[in-house]
Amino acid sequence: MRMFVVKYLFFFLVLITFSPIFATRTPFKKSEPRKRIVLYYHDILFRGNYTANATSAAVTKPTGLGQFMQGLMVVFDDPVTEDQQLHSTPVARAEGLYFYNTKTAYSVWFAYTLVFNSTEYNGTINVMGADMLMEKTRDLSIVGDTGDFSIARGIMTFQTEAIEEFKYFRLKMDIMLYECHKKEI
Amino acid sequence: MRMFVVKYLFFFLVLITFSPIFATRTPFKKSEPRKRIVLYYHDILFRGNYTANATSAAVTKPTGLGQFMQGLMVVFDDPVTEDQQLHSTPVARAEGLYFYNTKTAYSVWFAYTLVFNSTEYNGTINVMGADMLMEKTRDLSIVGDTGDFSIARGIMTFQTEAIEEFKYFRLKMDIMLYECHKKEI
Amino acid sequence: MRMFVVKYLFFFLVLITFSPIFATRTPFKKSEPRKRIVLYYHDILFRGNYTANATSAAVTKPTGLGQFMQGLMVVFDDPVTEDQQLHSTPVARAEGLYFYNTKTAYSVWFAYTLVFNSTEYNGTINVMGADMLMEKTRDLSIVGDTGDFSIARGIMTFQTEAIEEFKYFRLKMDIMLYECHKKEI
Repeated sequence: MRMFVVKYLFFFLVLITFSPIFATRTPFKKSEPRKRIVLYYHDILFRGNYTANATSAAVTKPTGLGQFMQGLMVVFDDPVTEDQQLHSTPVARAEGLYFYNTKTAYSVWFAYTLVFNSTEYNGTINVMGADMLMEKTRDLSIVGDTGDFSIARGIMTFQTEAIEEFKYFRLKMDIMLYECHKKEI
Repeated sequence: MRMFVVKYLFFFLVLITFSPIFATRTPFKKSEPRKRIVLYYHDILFRGNYTANATSAAVTKPTGLGQFMQGLMVVFDDPVTEDQQLHSTPVARAEGLYFYNTKTAYSVWFAYTLVFNSTEYNGTINVMGADMLMEKTRDLSIVGDTGDFSIARGIMTFQTEAIEEFKYFRLKMDIMLYECHKKEI
Repeated sequence: MRMFVVKYLFFFLVLITFSPIFATRTPFKKSEPRKRIVLYYHDILFRGNYTANATSAAVTKPTGLGQFMQGLMVVFDDPVTEDQQLHSTPVARAEGLYFYNTKTAYSVWFAYTLVFNSTEYNGTINVMGADMLMEKTRDLSIVGDTGDFSIARGIMTFQTEAIEEFKYFRLKMDIMLYECHKKEI
């Protein structure tokens, strides 16, 4: 019987050794994010006449396809704060672009980098995705990270908090980071 | 001899326990994609005079560097269908931009989001990459996903199916998604 | 005692089998990149009057927000070499865009594809990130890859090596690729 047990163990060991799936049966839905950060993004559009707080400006004009600014592209280096106040000390900058891309609704497309350089975080988070302004929340992808954030991945959920059309808007950014496994050589 | 076996087992267990590589010796080339979806992307360029079906428009002009439209940038919110018919009911939208970037050949660079909102899928797939139009197939990267697609990664293969120069083109998009492992905390 | 050992082994096996964390306790900081490649990126800006070697051109003009070219966007298909010499045979092309996005400093944002088509490598590496020109080194994200590079991830470190303002600049690109685990079905 003892030998039976030992043989069984061997069988079991072989099973473990050659079954990588044993180590990886972690369904996505249950995963908790490794890190969750909520921040606020403030965009003040430069209007040609000097706007003291402006940190973004349009580089193209609407194309005339539809009535929803299709084609207007804005590049920005916007302050990002921990609370909703525009004039709080920024904890990061958001650098990148967005553009209106739809002829039948207000909808923009974003690609940008969150640049952290504070006592708390040093590094960047890179984000890309569609931002359909008419929906309450919109999920964009965190496609890469550097520094403290290593090469995590994740989801960035946008929620519009305030909007003064084509002058100022504030987004709540709910950042959820997951860590990818990396293979050793 | 029995003790020898037991000791050997212990050695083996220690080996397994401290050798993460055992669980990960899965060469990439053998991996099958978790999900494969084939879809068709239709781009109808707005030409200033009204084009009823137009869903994209140029936001910049060619720069004059070479004869291949270098510098022409187009933003789009284009229909995506399950078959090759432009007028089939879209199953997704493709929102983003492309631009001609080469002085010696027709070559564009794409960044966009596939937005699904159907009974079958809810979520987005974010794509980036070079699209060298003279090659039969071109591989772009799936750099992030949200919703039903979680935070998978993958490859998006483009194939030009039809082209009416600077008016309409149709791409076959062959989407191959892989699931990245995620580390539990 | 023998049975004790065997029971202990069983306990241990169960622990291994149901503890995926055993196979994944690899802290990021210790990981060595799977592949490291150093390349040089050469950008020669087209100035309207013909520039024989130009491979990039501005598609928008500065917006006037600040004194640091905010809003100037350049699209490129630039040669990439293994050494610092502009006229060495390119081993890859860099295709994409950058734009100045900041009103208080020279700072650009990059998104591009490294396209390899050589005896050594075939495939692409997709990159996104902020490039704060005043810092000695800047880390961008490798957000996706195709071909030989599979769907690795990584960091791309930029270092400015030479600059002739708005005519030519050379970046050292230090590419560090990691391989993400992929789940089998």
